[in-house]
Amino acid sequence: MDNRSIGVFDSGLGGLTVVKELNKRLPGESIIYFGDTGRVPYGTRSSETVSLYAAQAESLLLRHDVKMIIAACGTVSSVAAHTGDCLPVKFMGVVASAAKEAAGATKNGRVGVIGTTATVNSGAFNRHIAAIDSGIEVFSGECPLLVPLVENGWIDREDEVTRLTVQRYLAPIRAAGVDTLILGCTHFPVLSGIIADYMGGGCVLVNTGRTTAAAAGEYLEQSCMLSDSPLADRYFFTDKNAAFERTVNILMGHDLENMEFIPVDSL
Amino acid sequence: MDNRSIGVFDSGLGGLTVVKELNKRLPGESIIYFGDTGRVPYGTRSSETVSLYAAQAESLLLRHDVKMIIAACGTVSSVAAHTGDCLPVKFMGVVASAAKEAAGATKNGRVGVIGTTATVNSGAFNRHIAAIDSGIEVFSGECPLLVPLVENGWIDREDEVTRLTVQRYLAPIRAAGVDTLILGCTHFPVLSGIIADYMGGGCVLVNTGRTTAAAAGEYLEQSCMLSDSPLADRYFFTDKNAAFERTVNILMGHDLENMEFIPVDSL
Repeated sequence: MDNRSIGVFDSGLGGLTVVKELNKRLPGESIIYFGDTGRVPYGTRSSETVSLYAAQAESLLLRHDVKMIIAACGTVSSVAAHTGDCLPVKFMGVVASAAKEAAGATKNGRVGVIGTTATVNSGAFNRHIAAIDSGIEVFSGECPLLVPLVENGWIDREDEVTRLTVQRYLAPIRAAGVDTLILGCTHFPVLSGIIADYMGGGCVLVNTGRTTAAAAGEYLEQSCMLSDSPLADRYFFTDKNAAFERTVNILMGHDLENMEFIPVDSL
Repeated sequence: MDNRSIGVFDSGLGGLTVVKELNKRLPGESIIYFGDTGRVPYGTRSSETVSLYAAQAESLLLRHDVKMIIAACGTVSSVAAHTGDCLPVKFMGVVASAAKEAAGATKNGRVGVIGTTATVNSGAFNRHIAAIDSGIEVFSGECPLLVPLVENGWIDREDEVTRLTVQRYLAPIRAAGVDTLILGCTHFPVLSGIIADYMGGGCVLVNTGRTTAAAAGEYLEQSCMLSDSPLADRYFFTDKNAAFERTVNILMGHDLENMEFIPVDSL
């Protein structure tokens, strides 16, 4: 048994969709979450800058004595996973488990991946899928505007701007005939209705939060590190703007307790 | 005469539209520009965080011995103008000159203001206009998604997503019958064609970059601080992503020389 918390971090609030899945799958575990809301988004930054920010987040979580660290962010998992290599605790991104799920789900050997610009340019999902089955063809597309659309709450399934944006981004991937699509950014599950409408019912959507929560649970179980007396969840953020509460509710489904705000220059 | 450079800063690349106007209006002046591309955007952050970032930018520019500092950012000018109060050089935001221009331009006493969420929530433009003429009615609207639309290059005058987004944001302001509209964010001049199409030819668009360049020129002239032997322009940024060059060209109209990249944690 290990009653320490699971450390989870993200560029901002998107990683809360992963926390939601962790809470569902591992109700006995507690979470310490760090969201870099003072510097979100990461997906349009260089890998050097994302790596610097990721290292600062990992240091903060280690200071809070977590038993493992999950990068609940498609961008960090894709371009800054090396920052987790020499940590003294288990590190897990969202790419490996989602790639495995997609490789298992596809029947026609054609998988789509959507994510931020940094994620797609990194080719991380492609490499992971190729390592499982080099016969699978991967079609990826960057969707940078979906993050601000979610953060601004334009998420209604009938929202014309968001539907048009999804359509413009996904047209080449749908045309490629994929039967499986990885939502490679933690903001995207919020838009899964609109994405499913456009891709059609025959296309399986892979939610990286769900696959990562399952992988984290397996790891803790196999390592006999599950908790039998969880602490309270805690949340750290680097900024709180006017839309904070609304966005938290969009992503998490409810308000958060035990929040602390720490300025960026004290990281 | 004062041959030191003018210091200009912005959350990222948007302030380059102000540099463009400064170059046009004051060709004998040199510029030192700081763009916080590692933490852009500011317009969806709290005023505390924007103030912290603005103070760091001002310190950097002072270390480069500038003769005045222009916050070429609607958000900083609106919520963090106090950071310029105790600087040892003249500080200028983009609000005062644009408010003056709009107050002079309106014939029906109805002025619109669009900007980021932080800018609009601050009420800074409203206060400045009221101080000039309390009879003018101001109708303001936040347009947070216009910044990522510009940064992603969806700026074609016929772009359906951008036109729909402009329409959704501006509908209440057009309905209010304004005859003058302040583009209160340095990204917006790039969309002036789309905005003009929606607002109609009778509506004057006020470009804050243009009014600020004129105000800076007047100040330097009156203070006998114009340059007679300008240095080369220099540009500092905290990140360079894959879209950097393309966005610079959208905003500035050409590439930049003399660029340096400095990581955020060394500010």
